[in-house]
Amino acid sequence: MASSSDHASNEIALERQKAILSRKPTEAGLMANAIRALAIDGVEKAKSGHPGMPMGMADVATALWTKFMKYDAADPHWPDRDRFILSAGHGSMLLYSLLHLTGYEHMTIEDLKQFRQLGSHTAGHPERGEHPAIEMTTGPLGQGISAATGFALAERMMAARFGKSLVDHRTWVIASDGDMMEGVSHESCAIAGHLALNKLTVLYDDNSISIDGSTALAMTDDVLKRYAGYGWATKRIDGHDPAQIEAAIQFAMRSRKPTIIACRTIIGFGAPHKAGTSSTHGSPLGPEEAAAAKAMLGWTAPPFSVPPEILKPWREAGARGEGARRAWLKRHASNKQKAEFDRVLNGDLPTGYAEAMTALREKIVAEKPNLATRQASQLALDALVPVVPEMVGGSADLTPSNNTFVKSMGTCVPGDYSGRYIHFGVREHGMAACLNGLALHGGLIPYGGTFFIFSDYCRPAIRLAAIMRARPILVLTHDSIGLGEDGPTHQPVEHLASFRAMPNVLVLRPGDTLETAECWDIALHHKDGPTLMILSRQAMPALPRQHGSENLSARGGYVVADTEGPRKATLIATGSEVAIAVAARDALAKEGIGVAVVSVPSFELFGRQDEVYRTDVLGLAPRIGIEAAVGFGWERLLGETGTFIGMHSFGASAPYQKLYDHFGITPAAVVAAVKSKL
Amino acid sequence: MASSSDHASNEIALERQKAILSRKPTEAGLMANAIRALAIDGVEKAKSGHPGMPMGMADVATALWTKFMKYDAADPHWPDRDRFILSAGHGSMLLYSLLHLTGYEHMTIEDLKQFRQLGSHTAGHPERGEHPAIEMTTGPLGQGISAATGFALAERMMAARFGKSLVDHRTWVIASDGDMMEGVSHESCAIAGHLALNKLTVLYDDNSISIDGSTALAMTDDVLKRYAGYGWATKRIDGHDPAQIEAAIQFAMRSRKPTIIACRTIIGFGAPHKAGTSSTHGSPLGPEEAAAAKAMLGWTAPPFSVPPEILKPWREAGARGEGARRAWLKRHASNKQKAEFDRVLNGDLPTGYAEAMTALREKIVAEKPNLATRQASQLALDALVPVVPEMVGGSADLTPSNNTFVKSMGTCVPGDYSGRYIHFGVREHGMAACLNGLALHGGLIPYGGTFFIFSDYCRPAIRLAAIMRARPILVLTHDSIGLGEDGPTHQPVEHLASFRAMPNVLVLRPGDTLETAECWDIALHHKDGPTLMILSRQAMPALPRQHGSENLSARGGYVVADTEGPRKATLIATGSEVAIAVAARDALAKEGIGVAVVSVPSFELFGRQDEVYRTDVLGLAPRIGIEAAVGFGWERLLGETGTFIGMHSFGASAPYQKLYDHFGITPAAVVAAVKSKL
Repeated sequence: MASSSDHASNEIALERQKAILSRKPTEAGLMANAIRALAIDGVEKAKSGHPGMPMGMADVATALWTKFMKYDAADPHWPDRDRFILSAGHGSMLLYSLLHLTGYEHMTIEDLKQFRQLGSHTAGHPERGEHPAIEMTTGPLGQGISAATGFALAERMMAARFGKSLVDHRTWVIASDGDMMEGVSHESCAIAGHLALNKLTVLYDDNSISIDGSTALAMTDDVLKRYAGYGWATKRIDGHDPAQIEAAIQFAMRSRKPTIIACRTIIGFGAPHKAGTSSTHGSPLGPEEAAAAKAMLGWTAPPFSVPPEILKPWREAGARGEGARRAWLKRHASNKQKAEFDRVLNGDLPTGYAEAMTALREKIVAEKPNLATRQASQLALDALVPVVPEMVGGSADLTPSNNTFVKSMGTCVPGDYSGRYIHFGVREHGMAACLNGLALHGGLIPYGGTFFIFSDYCRPAIRLAAIMRARPILVLTHDSIGLGEDGPTHQPVEHLASFRAMPNVLVLRPGDTLETAECWDIALHHKDGPTLMILSRQAMPALPRQHGSENLSARGGYVVADTEGPRKATLIATGSEVAIAVAARDALAKEGIGVAVVSVPSFELFGRQDEVYRTDVLGLAPRIGIEAAVGFGWERLLGETGTFIGMHSFGASAPYQKLYDHFGITPAAVVAAVKSKL
Repeated sequence: MASSSDHASNEIALERQKAILSRKPTEAGLMANAIRALAIDGVEKAKSGHPGMPMGMADVATALWTKFMKYDAADPHWPDRDRFILSAGHGSMLLYSLLHLTGYEHMTIEDLKQFRQLGSHTAGHPERGEHPAIEMTTGPLGQGISAATGFALAERMMAARFGKSLVDHRTWVIASDGDMMEGVSHESCAIAGHLALNKLTVLYDDNSISIDGSTALAMTDDVLKRYAGYGWATKRIDGHDPAQIEAAIQFAMRSRKPTIIACRTIIGFGAPHKAGTSSTHGSPLGPEEAAAAKAMLGWTAPPFSVPPEILKPWREAGARGEGARRAWLKRHASNKQKAEFDRVLNGDLPTGYAEAMTALREKIVAEKPNLATRQASQLALDALVPVVPEMVGGSADLTPSNNTFVKSMGTCVPGDYSGRYIHFGVREHGMAACLNGLALHGGLIPYGGTFFIFSDYCRPAIRLAAIMRARPILVLTHDSIGLGEDGPTHQPVEHLASFRAMPNVLVLRPGDTLETAECWDIALHHKDGPTLMILSRQAMPALPRQHGSENLSARGGYVVADTEGPRKATLIATGSEVAIAVAARDALAKEGIGVAVVSVPSFELFGRQDEVYRTDVLGLAPRIGIEAAVGFGWERLLGETGTFIGMHSFGASAPYQKLYDHFGITPAAVVAAVKSKL
């Protein structure tokens, strides 16, 4: 089925390839062939990988990395480097080849030979952390181009704060047809267009091929017309013509809008038989076609080697940025804001933070407010945002519901990026991906709000943050049937379980105003992964806990109220259900039945406590778990004999008190469960 | 922050509203006011809801429902009715008002008074199943408009099979700014444009208002330019001018492309102070503004009542389709394909199905093939698709990897919908939403393939299918670290847990070729919810189980291989890890240690078995669980003393055998775990 459409593209591509290769090779062309040869070799040796994209985009990447992009291979950490995002992450050999050719440390020929092997720097897709020049993990389509919006926005926000002298760089993206088709790119690129992020440039590998065959099988939309609709500048070029590539990049650098350059390329460029077909996309060329491709390109060097006359200009290109970097270092050293700039880049909280947190804590302990935790979160933000200038935030069009706006922030608008609040529109996934870029860029602590239910829309971006150990904070309100009338489509029941199952994610569900402040404290200190703040729509009373100065939520779980005598049962709850447990405890106490209440704002943090502490908290008495969500995974806390009171289905539409009654999540149900265990 | 932009739109809106209301009221206008009045009353009484959209779109909806849409309020089940999808589901009072006014059963004034109350037909958002005329559940933005692509495609596919005489209807959507911003609509509308689904019409409520305030805060893209890029016909009209509305709908009905009509409306039309502001979006107007709005509209009837002179033309409109329906019933009664048409609409499997399944089963039992379960799935599809003509399928551009294409299907292309295979492009979410529409329309059993990891992208659509109890089948291959070199971004670890936690979802992870065939058998019989087929990339041997004719997978879990004497341990595994358990069992048997192996292709189905069966299968010996995924939720099977062998982090990039060794998911690890329990 795919073969007939593939066949047609193949014939056209081979004709075009022949015409291009009949021209006299330029130095740029020879340099690009080094990428092609290394990509072929890497994939052949691994017997797995994607040679087609690196071969197709080699000319574009060569122009960018040898003439335009600002970087210095000697220092991948230089804060004012341009950011390069390989959104089409399957073409990872393109990036690895570039890093090797331009002379980055830790990207030797030996590393290229270890492509896709356990423990190498050269994983199947670029993985943040495997090499310092990998700005982010890419592979899931749409995520790179969308995080790039965040990188580009971070640059504008940081420049607004620290000035052009310290912050003045660009964001470059190589993206594929798949990136264009993914919905998240629609969302993020609409944001980029709205905010006029003109230093963002997307080089779109417009090769007409996807895995099923020709893109004509499924993709007939006019991509550039669409981007023009978003307010982007657009350009279409021959992706194998160096002059057109250079002119287009210069056009992008002058543009007052973000720019997309559709580069018409031949996938697998150089392969004499397979070029222009999906067979070069995700499989090795095979020894014969690989050899024939090198012959066709006039590449005679042995596998995994680059002739010195080609390596030399590459290495020179890799050092092109040295002067700029040294000049920047000088400016940085004498900049009045140096200390502050370094602080935010390190991700350290400012002086004044601890005081503000202590004051907030004392105020809450004194006033014991009866607030929804989303309002408690507003209280915390009101106290902390003014003293933590690197906090930037927004909402996916639910600002008044998420309580995410603090007046002093100002709004970030096209052309003026000094405002710290971002209206993301009804674009949850685009927002979450953008938060990843804001967090990865450095210098900012980003948060974004939506309803907890719409974390489903954000999930691929949150997972990527977790893999990368990036630190976006998601403010997820309306966290259960407590949402009430909007009904089951808006009531999370499985979401807590689904994120507790995801590695590296910190899920926090505070049970009152004080716990909410504590959870914000945890989130702001949590540098190595995403934090989800799970907050209620409805109000809840202050918990009757002891008020020392310790952040008890940081333990993950703790005893809110114990018995005087021996425990008859332990009630374990989170969020809005802790109050239900407390009410049940009070009722039981009147009957002389002593039970303890344990609040567990975070399964993850509680799981990290030592066995002694955990056993001490959970106790040996029968356990009752209470959470307005499905019980999947609660066995971990309850054991085999525990009882879970929560949801066993989707929710329903009604005032929330009625729903709690209807689904049997009430103090009376808890009391009955305890008594059944006596 | 929102207030200043809101203020500006408010002033403009109030001016425009005044001008419109100064014209002499038409009958259509009076009829539209009935919608407005009922929407106001419903929301006021519930003290919760969204009056702004119904008031804004009342004129458009009145034109559609009184002059163009084909339906007969006397029979909401008429198969050839036009489908109406309220993608902007928060405006549910619009739909409920229409159903009441046009005379549908079970939508009395009393029902409208019960808006948003427990157990009513009139939930906060339209819920499929609450009333037969609600085609689907909507509310999560982007889902309705995207499922509508599936409805429209189903009509074309059914018409290709059964002819225009039985199938010839349209799909109408009312969508909001939020629908336009959501990425899933980008994906699905690109599919609709590609497939030239010209009987799909979107009435876009272009009211310039979202929750944060004016859409100018975040949404400055040119929506119609974008849709033109997708290959849609576009039109912009005044959404309060009946003549323009009618002309635009007629334009859409003549179009050879799908059509979007941007209806410039005033949100909360009629409200003398709040019209044109976000304050009418999601809250009651309040008694004063409600009364003033009715006065401004000239509406003098008491709350929840419609004057007979206005109700009469509405009821006549609701009966407009009676003639067409009776004519259809006659054609249907005499149609040669009547029995087959009725069968597929009932969702019954055809004669010949059982035979084909038996033959497949016998072939597998005889040949014991060593296949990846994705290949086993191909084998099943090759056998079943030819005898089940209502099966239609596709892939999100991973056809050769998902093994979803069967040659005899033919490909569905623009203008010829007789092919049963759909190239969805790299649009997982759009595909999943489209599958929902294909399933809900009736007459088709749709499946769609992607990598299991990308189920994250599909999640909101799968959840909606689960709430609606719709029956898409997701074919999710490359289900674990068994994927190998592509690395952690492509290796699901938490996905099994995350879907096992979701109500109404059937998760099936077969462990060999026979179980895969059995799981397809389960999926094709499963009418009341989505089924996820979780399939491996890598090959696995046939399991050494007894081969009666019973579908053992349908039990959810069963003993693959027992001991002769007493069990020393029970090894419980799913999918590709059952073979690891079997290998461990064989190794232990050599040492005289008897352990049983239990395969659990479905937690859900196993959970539905009676206690006796479950205990019998799981046994009382120590339990070891083995799954190449996180153990979250496994406590349910393992109890407190069980041991879980699986993943505790994200995966890595390497050949898959190395990964199984690296993460310690091996027969040796199982053997060691068993010995530690002896």
